[in-house]
Amino acid sequence: MQRFFDSNINVNIDESYVMSEEESKHTVRVLRMQEGDTIEIIDGKGTCYTATITEAHPKHCTVVITEKNTEIRSDHSIHIAVSPTKQLERMEWFIEKATEIGITRVSFIHCKNSERDRLKLDRLERKLISAVKQSKRIFAPVLDEMIGFKEFILKHPNGLIAYCGTGDKKDLATIFQPTNCPILIGPEGDFSEDEVNFALKNGYQLITFGENRLRTETAALYACMQAKLLI
Amino acid sequence: MQRFFDSNINVNIDESYVMSEEESKHTVRVLRMQEGDTIEIIDGKGTCYTATITEAHPKHCTVVITEKNTEIRSDHSIHIAVSPTKQLERMEWFIEKATEIGITRVSFIHCKNSERDRLKLDRLERKLISAVKQSKRIFAPVLDEMIGFKEFILKHPNGLIAYCGTGDKKDLATIFQPTNCPILIGPEGDFSEDEVNFALKNGYQLITFGENRLRTETAALYACMQAKLLI
Repeated sequence: MQRFFDSNINVNIDESYVMSEEESKHTVRVLRMQEGDTIEIIDGKGTCYTATITEAHPKHCTVVITEKNTEIRSDHSIHIAVSPTKQLERMEWFIEKATEIGITRVSFIHCKNSERDRLKLDRLERKLISAVKQSKRIFAPVLDEMIGFKEFILKHPNGLIAYCGTGDKKDLATIFQPTNCPILIGPEGDFSEDEVNFALKNGYQLITFGENRLRTETAALYACMQAKLLI
Repeated sequence: MQRFFDSNINVNIDESYVMSEEESKHTVRVLRMQEGDTIEIIDGKGTCYTATITEAHPKHCTVVITEKNTEIRSDHSIHIAVSPTKQLERMEWFIEKATEIGITRVSFIHCKNSERDRLKLDRLERKLISAVKQSKRIFAPVLDEMIGFKEFILKHPNGLIAYCGTGDKKDLATIFQPTNCPILIGPEGDFSEDEVNFALKNGYQLITFGENRLRTETAALYACMQAKLLI
């Protein structure tokens, strides 16, 4: 069944709902769906609605809800905080793949060696929604606006930080916790020593992905996939 | 140290070597390296040469070998056979990421539901070489030309096949073997029942990556990363 995404939907069975202009256009003009056709709408927060189209209008397509199923999100989570790459495209694919795999939350952190001072989330959010629909997930990951490295650490103490420099580094699998265990992935130039020390003082542990040098987005996805196998 | 790739290099210490025209141009024109500078050249088959530039010519840059180190490839391997996606870009990033992670071999298979009848390897090979250099690997993965599904199975009996349909499916981690265990990833429309039965008759076992629908290249990379954690 064709699946749509609308984070604002919050209705009950037998009630009507008017889809957003963008999704209305997609439903009626692109997919050529008609009155009587059945669709699914998810809110990305655990609820999946089954709905029947009652007015196939290309700007305000109206549906009536016939079924509503809600799932409770597990308290197990995969939270990756990454310094965004210079090429936005690399972050886009990380978001797409991590969403398919089932990441819970992505934070962006601004580090000493970060290649970007700013990051707009709109294109990343579109990739995310498309991957949620494509992979038939009920929950959409949370995307956080970029904040400073130290601000992030203070907000989220205790976690894992991937580091290429020297130190007492462990394998992710041996120390990952399935709740409240953010994994930090640094920029191409790595975290600074000062950043690593700040993290260590705030309950972080160093991890390594082996001897080979991984690109930022590869390391982030590798961490996500490893965590997925552990929760 | 700057690293170069040349699959044809096969020389001894103190001997001279003339780099390919492409790598010569890159060395002299792009990186502006000069006589006396030291570089590394890998052949992708386990040998890493340290060399000093003796003639910084932009078409035939000449070096003298000062060190030669050879590693023996482990008999543990990650071999993924994948039906190529319609968008070549998706295969390019799979090759890039899988190379960074340490895949041994990638085969392309033509299936009933494949979206491509032909696949040129040249762009994929360039991505592969760039990822080998970037991730500081000594071994380059082998890329095989696309062959038919059944031809592949007969050449490589016994392995794992990822399938979305019904059957006795297992987790990759429980049945993966570190040697001679190709993992087959199908097209967006999945393997046909006939293909699955043919594989089962030839020693293959069904695997699943869970309930969510992964894109071909995501499934291929997920399989590669899982295998990497097991070898």
